[in-house]
Amino acid sequence: MAKIADRYFTVDPWTVSEAGFDPKHGRVAESIFSLANEYSGARGFFDEDYTGDSLISSYFNGVYEYGAEDPSIQYAGIQKRGHFMVNADNWLAMSLEIDGERLDLHQATVSDFTRQLDLRNGVLTRSFVWELADGRQVKLTFTRFISMVDASSAYQQVTLTPLNFSGSATLTSRVDFDTRHGADPDPHWEDVRDFNELTAFGILGKTRTSRKRVFTLAKVSFTGVTPTTSTPLDQTRVVGTAYELPLTANEPLTFTKQVTNIVEKDEAVANDAIWQRGLTTSADQADYAAALKTQTGYWDDFWAKNDIQIDGDVADQQGIRYCIFQMAQTYHGQDPTNNIGAKGLTGEAYGGLAFWDTETMCLPFYLFNDLKAAKNLVEFRYSTLDAAKRRAKMVDCEGASYPISTINGDESTSLWQHANTQLQPSTAVAYAIWHYAHLSDDTAFLNTHGIEMLVEISRFLYSRGAWNRKHEFSFYGVMGPDEFQVMTNHNAYTNYMALKTFEFTIETAQHLAKTDPATYADLVAKTGVSDEELANFQDASDHMVFLGDTNGMIEQQQGFYDLPHIDVDKIPVTDFPLYDHWSYDRLFRNDMIKQPDVLMFQFLYNQDFTARSKRLNYDYYTPRTIHESSLSPSIHSILAQELHKFDDAINFFGFATRMDLDNFNRNTRDGLHTTSIAAAWLNIVYGFGGLRSDGPELILNPGLPASWQGYQFRINYRGANIQVKVTAETVTLTATKPTTLTLYGKETTLQETPLNVALPAAWRAK
Amino acid sequence: MAKIADRYFTVDPWTVSEAGFDPKHGRVAESIFSLANEYSGARGFFDEDYTGDSLISSYFNGVYEYGAEDPSIQYAGIQKRGHFMVNADNWLAMSLEIDGERLDLHQATVSDFTRQLDLRNGVLTRSFVWELADGRQVKLTFTRFISMVDASSAYQQVTLTPLNFSGSATLTSRVDFDTRHGADPDPHWEDVRDFNELTAFGILGKTRTSRKRVFTLAKVSFTGVTPTTSTPLDQTRVVGTAYELPLTANEPLTFTKQVTNIVEKDEAVANDAIWQRGLTTSADQADYAAALKTQTGYWDDFWAKNDIQIDGDVADQQGIRYCIFQMAQTYHGQDPTNNIGAKGLTGEAYGGLAFWDTETMCLPFYLFNDLKAAKNLVEFRYSTLDAAKRRAKMVDCEGASYPISTINGDESTSLWQHANTQLQPSTAVAYAIWHYAHLSDDTAFLNTHGIEMLVEISRFLYSRGAWNRKHEFSFYGVMGPDEFQVMTNHNAYTNYMALKTFEFTIETAQHLAKTDPATYADLVAKTGVSDEELANFQDASDHMVFLGDTNGMIEQQQGFYDLPHIDVDKIPVTDFPLYDHWSYDRLFRNDMIKQPDVLMFQFLYNQDFTARSKRLNYDYYTPRTIHESSLSPSIHSILAQELHKFDDAINFFGFATRMDLDNFNRNTRDGLHTTSIAAAWLNIVYGFGGLRSDGPELILNPGLPASWQGYQFRINYRGANIQVKVTAETVTLTATKPTTLTLYGKETTLQETPLNVALPAAWRAK
Repeated sequence: MAKIADRYFTVDPWTVSEAGFDPKHGRVAESIFSLANEYSGARGFFDEDYTGDSLISSYFNGVYEYGAEDPSIQYAGIQKRGHFMVNADNWLAMSLEIDGERLDLHQATVSDFTRQLDLRNGVLTRSFVWELADGRQVKLTFTRFISMVDASSAYQQVTLTPLNFSGSATLTSRVDFDTRHGADPDPHWEDVRDFNELTAFGILGKTRTSRKRVFTLAKVSFTGVTPTTSTPLDQTRVVGTAYELPLTANEPLTFTKQVTNIVEKDEAVANDAIWQRGLTTSADQADYAAALKTQTGYWDDFWAKNDIQIDGDVADQQGIRYCIFQMAQTYHGQDPTNNIGAKGLTGEAYGGLAFWDTETMCLPFYLFNDLKAAKNLVEFRYSTLDAAKRRAKMVDCEGASYPISTINGDESTSLWQHANTQLQPSTAVAYAIWHYAHLSDDTAFLNTHGIEMLVEISRFLYSRGAWNRKHEFSFYGVMGPDEFQVMTNHNAYTNYMALKTFEFTIETAQHLAKTDPATYADLVAKTGVSDEELANFQDASDHMVFLGDTNGMIEQQQGFYDLPHIDVDKIPVTDFPLYDHWSYDRLFRNDMIKQPDVLMFQFLYNQDFTARSKRLNYDYYTPRTIHESSLSPSIHSILAQELHKFDDAINFFGFATRMDLDNFNRNTRDGLHTTSIAAAWLNIVYGFGGLRSDGPELILNPGLPASWQGYQFRINYRGANIQVKVTAETVTLTATKPTTLTLYGKETTLQETPLNVALPAAWRAK
Repeated sequence: MAKIADRYFTVDPWTVSEAGFDPKHGRVAESIFSLANEYSGARGFFDEDYTGDSLISSYFNGVYEYGAEDPSIQYAGIQKRGHFMVNADNWLAMSLEIDGERLDLHQATVSDFTRQLDLRNGVLTRSFVWELADGRQVKLTFTRFISMVDASSAYQQVTLTPLNFSGSATLTSRVDFDTRHGADPDPHWEDVRDFNELTAFGILGKTRTSRKRVFTLAKVSFTGVTPTTSTPLDQTRVVGTAYELPLTANEPLTFTKQVTNIVEKDEAVANDAIWQRGLTTSADQADYAAALKTQTGYWDDFWAKNDIQIDGDVADQQGIRYCIFQMAQTYHGQDPTNNIGAKGLTGEAYGGLAFWDTETMCLPFYLFNDLKAAKNLVEFRYSTLDAAKRRAKMVDCEGASYPISTINGDESTSLWQHANTQLQPSTAVAYAIWHYAHLSDDTAFLNTHGIEMLVEISRFLYSRGAWNRKHEFSFYGVMGPDEFQVMTNHNAYTNYMALKTFEFTIETAQHLAKTDPATYADLVAKTGVSDEELANFQDASDHMVFLGDTNGMIEQQQGFYDLPHIDVDKIPVTDFPLYDHWSYDRLFRNDMIKQPDVLMFQFLYNQDFTARSKRLNYDYYTPRTIHESSLSPSIHSILAQELHKFDDAINFFGFATRMDLDNFNRNTRDGLHTTSIAAAWLNIVYGFGGLRSDGPELILNPGLPASWQGYQFRINYRGANIQVKVTAETVTLTATKPTTLTLYGKETTLQETPLNVALPAAWRAK
């Protein structure tokens, strides 16, 4: 199945732009031009009225609504009512009218249209000349940004220059809570309280079912003009003002809107308190110019520490920078009750829900970018431990079962074949605790929140698994990452991840008991963990079923080798996506793999397996894998690079950095593939860079794809910023403080002084 | 799990009755007192107004409505919109009022209440004395029956005797299409046209979504009184008349309502044509007395040919007669577009849908009772062959895939884990064709409709199954009758039934090609069947995977022996029904069996297996079986009897005949377990009687349970009525014409002259 680029945006190392507006790409551009700061996000929709196809959406991280209960679900243990990140208010909303003619790019005549996102400061700029029906022309420039430093602040500026006439215009600026969620068009917001003082207005909105509140305040100012009249709006769930503006030919005027968004997720907080907080925050808000300066400083600093440079492929260069930019926008550890939805804050698809992608795909980016952000991702799971314990009870198990998909910690998926059989969300949390603790040495976390989660997860796994009559422990009726195999037994992924979870739980608990008996006593008091229970975990771990041979070849699940074979390369392109074109059960009765099971855990716990085992499994499973998950190719690319299969490595890398920029899956209109964006970063740093973080010390085996002249990346590790620069001949490494790691199999200490090493021939793709 | 009787009805060999009315048993009694004649059915609800808990339902076989499309289904190949047998008009509806006081047993004071169903004539009688608030008393007797001979005819009679006063009463009689379906309370019927001539009234109703029409006409007459006034009703979807009746103390008066119900399933028929047919049919209708005489004659004749007598247990005697009575009421081959819903025509549960129970559980009753009825059951599947072909396409297969549940031939089940993985509806149709053809010698059917279905079913099976790399044929991702094992491979039931289907298809096709080339040419023209395709079926059959050993012990599916064991006897009673109390996935990850897979096909194709194989499998699977299907115990009982495990045989028989009379499952309120009723018949005739019909000739091995003194049953076979009478010492057999069969392993010819054989000690339970 060949994926084909649909290139629309201009290729440039530091910007993403379109020259001219093609409405057919309207929704794709809205997704691509999304701005966010973890706290909130807004798609790149037009500020002014637009009657063409558009998804006007703004989101606040963790602000969700409940769906209707599904009456078709009649069995126990199945989640009947999901939740989803709800479309919130349009704080950019405005209209522009000149003598009764309203600006609407669906109908207006415009020229010189450009739209550009600058990755160096996160500012989205759009400009064009609007020609009215009678030939009068107005030049318009719109800018917006959401502060990465001051979470509640966002800014909009519009500059208007009448080119060939004088007269007047009406500019209406609004805070609009009357938005509609595309998938559920009933209004989700109530106007709890609002105000309108003509140059300042706002609404305290509340969601219908989840009682989350957002208070949006706008402060409006003009330069180069004074409104002749200001008329307040009177609409349901909308506040704002219409300003009558005198226009003088060729004299620009500027409208500036400073927005404050206050999110309150706690029902106990009084409306008055939110109201006051909003007013105070708004009063203290930096002005546009000052905020823009701070914003630019933030991104300068960010790129200095986290940039990846690719020499020899501008498209990949742009792609990876766009990925890093969107990762940082989506999440940077601002709040431990936030997480990373499958589409970030850029669209409605997957309901804004977070999956186990967070721990397996996204976490490494933060581990090597900002440990505090990484910690907050792990703390998110601690903050939802109670929900995971409730879920475990719901499925007749003990301990804590983490959800397949969630915003608030509760399982949101009603599909039992996923929610009740996929144990990887729980084992991924254990993996994340281990990965974070291992790279951070944060024993304080590990010995409290970390071990508490580990005990509850192991307890869940032990109760969900079972002993067979040969005293072997295994999991029955489970689905691994390969979602084309439903209800399997002895699934290698599930079993291996459970084994690692048991072992890390035992090791951590026993170490704590020995080194810090008082804290261990707290754990016992809190969880009831006992030596006997740890012994059970050990027993299960010691007798875990693995279907493999002495060469290290692993059978994905009981019966996998026996499944009928289909040649995935012969499936017609028109059959994709398979879920839409194949009878559901047909997906499940052959040896086709959606995304890898065995290769996945051989990536996650890479050092546990011999090269021979990895090669055998790669060679067997790769031709059977259809990559219906956008995360799948990067894992194959990383392992291919490790196995010196350089053609595979670059082929699987393929569209990784440009999945959305080139709309490879033709669904970027619904939002960005945020977790694939994380996989693209992995693909360069773990793939071509050869980073491994699962051994006792960091491993680096940088290689170079044949099509690149060179590349460099930076990672932050134990207080040092490490730069790895690769050219065709040389690998140059620096670290801002002395850092020891294994480079090409040899213990090496990096320093500020560059270390130059010849790129080994074995790692140079031909 | 012990099931406990909730005995409420009086035990009697020929009647079912209640003495006194207990509203707590109101809905159970409504189900038990259901009347039907295949064409239509009505629960035993009260004729007059009743404000207590009640399910006022009448049904017409094959008259269904569509449910709403399920928006949660997003995958291909899954049925999104089901259908269900819809509650139709209440043609018994009436009110009785005396001086403003309305009869309502929820509030009225009554004495001497009795209700009785007479199995000898199918008449339901109810009588009581109603005491008004001021002490005035009225004796009331209600009778009703639905004609078994004249499908569209039904009768109601009410006799009223004022015991201690004279005065007047208002009796209102109605045809009421304003009924509500319990599970979907919107009105489902439109009043297309109606009339009201005071002593005759009717409505031609049409269902909203399926456009089925029912024309109900009532003719009303009085004896012993002449109404002083007759006032027509004016209500939506209701016609009728209120009659003012003078009352004279101790002088009975009788109200008689003759009802004609005309069902039209064909949309093409004009309303006028239905209207005229209704009027003509009503005009020709027999009166109450004549109809009752015909009805009694029908049942006299029926019982003479089909009765089972049990000597030594009146409760079982009543139970089995009730079962036979309800089977005959529900279905007797009146129309090949009818089938047998899981609840017959007695309630809403399971949506009135027919399952594969029809072919496996119900068909044998008709094969030995009325071959024409049996043929019509098989012809039902031919009449829905096109729907089965559409369904096969929908699941990306070829040929014909018969639905899990249906009224109109389309799949009605949206649960993919059943509808897309259970192949037993299709193999059951093949089994039924074979069973019918084998017992009837109806080669005309077999060589036309029969072989056409067989080819299409085999084609489906061949396309749904697959070859593995060892050139073995099997089915992957399937569920056998044991619905506690989802998505299994190498399921023994599926594979064995498919093998038998392939073999019978090949045998029938090849025999036809040889003996009747012209008819075979028709088949080829119609189905495109070829020698190559038959060779494929043969190849699949020859290389079908069976996981078994040389002793005949069969593994239910790949990996079954390896499943964690749970002791089903230790599951607390409060956990039942498990679907309500266990997390859905928990049902699926152990070796607990819902209903038997291996034992089931060893029952269906009984002669194919050695006694040793049957014993080994019985001993292994029985302790693992939880019998969450009400069909399950009878299969175990039948095999236990064959294996001379007499304690098991009688224990599993247990509640079979009285499942509903004693409300063992506590859900008889929702309707009768019609297919379990069929299983009870099987349990006696195939179980204790030792009948086997899958060999070249009939086999009989009658035994006697220890708790019975004796029993006798009758079966119709190749034009003979055979009576088998068993006492503690002797088995006596007669046949109305000479019939050869195998009795206790010896070829024996039965005649009109009784043949007395000593009951072998080996078959006598101690």
